[in-house]
Amino acid sequence: MVLVRHEIGEVLRDIRMSKRQTLRQVAARAAVALGYLSEIERGQKEVSSELLFSISEALDVPISQVMREVSVRLAIAEGVDIPDTVPVEFVASFDSSLINA
Amino acid sequence: MVLVRHEIGEVLRDIRMSKRQTLRQVAARAAVALGYLSEIERGQKEVSSELLFSISEALDVPISQVMREVSVRLAIAEGVDIPDTVPVEFVASFDSSLINA
Repeated sequence: MVLVRHEIGEVLRDIRMSKRQTLRQVAARAAVALGYLSEIERGQKEVSSELLFSISEALDVPISQVMREVSVRLAIAEGVDIPDTVPVEFVASFDSSLINA
Repeated sequence: MVLVRHEIGEVLRDIRMSKRQTLRQVAARAAVALGYLSEIERGQKEVSSELLFSISEALDVPISQVMREVSVRLAIAEGVDIPDTVPVEFVASFDSSLINA
């Protein structure tokens, strides 16, 4: 089972490391307990939307960028080949219009 | 504050609608209460990673695709420019031209 929280945790950790920030620094700025942030990074805890917003702010990175990287890693984990962003609605409606044609 | 659950809910709903599935059908296949799925779609409830996996399976769509679409919508909400994505306006017009073809 591919779990989104594992990828979110890894991405948050990688961003933090690439910015040479400690858990303590990011936790303080995001106003989250250090232990909790650590569990999120290890994919052990789900992160609420509000907390993800705070952590992204603390890391000075747009949430969209975090989730984009998450989607790329999920695609690798799922063995899905994602071309140049064919949005979901297009794929879905294209499918059903074909099926119903 | 940009909240991921709002975008996840909208994307899940759009995929379901485009596949002409009812809440009841998807809820049954994902083994989740109909009311809960509805709250998720409206962005009122966080979705756990396990449940997101089940719902994606029920919708027959990779989680990576869901999260990729989420990231695109987040970028729009954040006003972040993501280079290699197809703009929504283009998708919409491309979409309807197919439907009307």
